[in-house]
Amino acid sequence: MDESPGIAKLYSVLIAGEYAAHSRLITELGMAPDVDSRIAMGRLAASEMNHFDELAAELVKRDIDPVAAVLRYVDVFDRYHGTTNPKTWDEAMVKAYVGDGLAADFYRELAGVLPADARDVVSTVMSETGNSQFARDWVRSRVTADPALRWPLTLWGRRLLGEAITHAQWVLAAEEDVTDLLFSSTTDLAAVSRFFDTVTELHAQRMADLGLG
Amino acid sequence: MDESPGIAKLYSVLIAGEYAAHSRLITELGMAPDVDSRIAMGRLAASEMNHFDELAAELVKRDIDPVAAVLRYVDVFDRYHGTTNPKTWDEAMVKAYVGDGLAADFYRELAGVLPADARDVVSTVMSETGNSQFARDWVRSRVTADPALRWPLTLWGRRLLGEAITHAQWVLAAEEDVTDLLFSSTTDLAAVSRFFDTVTELHAQRMADLGLG
Repeated sequence: MDESPGIAKLYSVLIAGEYAAHSRLITELGMAPDVDSRIAMGRLAASEMNHFDELAAELVKRDIDPVAAVLRYVDVFDRYHGTTNPKTWDEAMVKAYVGDGLAADFYRELAGVLPADARDVVSTVMSETGNSQFARDWVRSRVTADPALRWPLTLWGRRLLGEAITHAQWVLAAEEDVTDLLFSSTTDLAAVSRFFDTVTELHAQRMADLGLG
Repeated sequence: MDESPGIAKLYSVLIAGEYAAHSRLITELGMAPDVDSRIAMGRLAASEMNHFDELAAELVKRDIDPVAAVLRYVDVFDRYHGTTNPKTWDEAMVKAYVGDGLAADFYRELAGVLPADARDVVSTVMSETGNSQFARDWVRSRVTADPALRWPLTLWGRRLLGEAITHAQWVLAAEEDVTDLLFSSTTDLAAVSRFFDTVTELHAQRMADLGLG
């Protein structure tokens, strides 16, 4: 295939992210307080699995084993999830909403810089987000009912953003081909910085959606 | 809607079964020994979730709350899963393959007796099974590599069938509308008995597929 080597690496990183996110949702499902919550979380996990399969198909086309891709890149995602391990269902719901939003931001940013074929793949993977509305409604109604939750959940949301940015920077630092693809050049630090500024603004909007911040 | 009241009850029973099966798969996912196994189990869980959503859409059309349907019928499925709780990944794989097969038998049997609309719904729900091939290949290769596993897993498979039949009979005994729908009449014990004979034969074939029995 006549394409930048960054594309296959990008898909490899993304599939490891979907795998790690799926594993986490499955673990957090054990905290669900009721049937509605279990179903909503089950849908989120199923849509991660669908994203996984779409990315796996792209990797197989490029003779890359999806499982090998997961094993190669999953550590950084596991570290992110390890540092942002929700202790309550409320925290899990903030993380689901914020995490889904951050993934959508990232995918949208990607869409602007990728060649047309890859853009279509990423758009398909992205199109299924939206299952996190349950999480948004949950947090909003909990914070409305109990304003004392607002401040700790706000701090939690900030921590999620901070850890996401830290871990994303580690990926970019380690994978130059991916960084080159996204920002034309690893030396274009201004572009990298603008990207994280945009993410931070969108995060603030999402925190407001949740009744936090 | 001008249809037998058994149809809505049947969908209610089935959706509770999908919910319980999804919950169980999620729990068993924690035992997965490697990334391939986690992915395969994640796909099985995602396809239960898709079945769930198809049945939920049918219930909503009939003004029935899917969550209420789950709550009403989930106990019998939870009891089934409670009595057939796998202790090892091998047992979980036998259960996934046998359970998926039993569900497919049941759905196929249904297709023969339902009105056309309902038949289409049930066929759609059924069409996604097939994710359990991973489980079949797993068990077959394990039993080939270690013949000492054959006998305990054979006993396990028999127990799964026995418990499935016992619990299915409880549902049929408690839900006359459903039984009437499936067998024209609850008093047609011969038809009920033929149904379970067919299931037992197909189960024997599946055990042979696994290298067991």
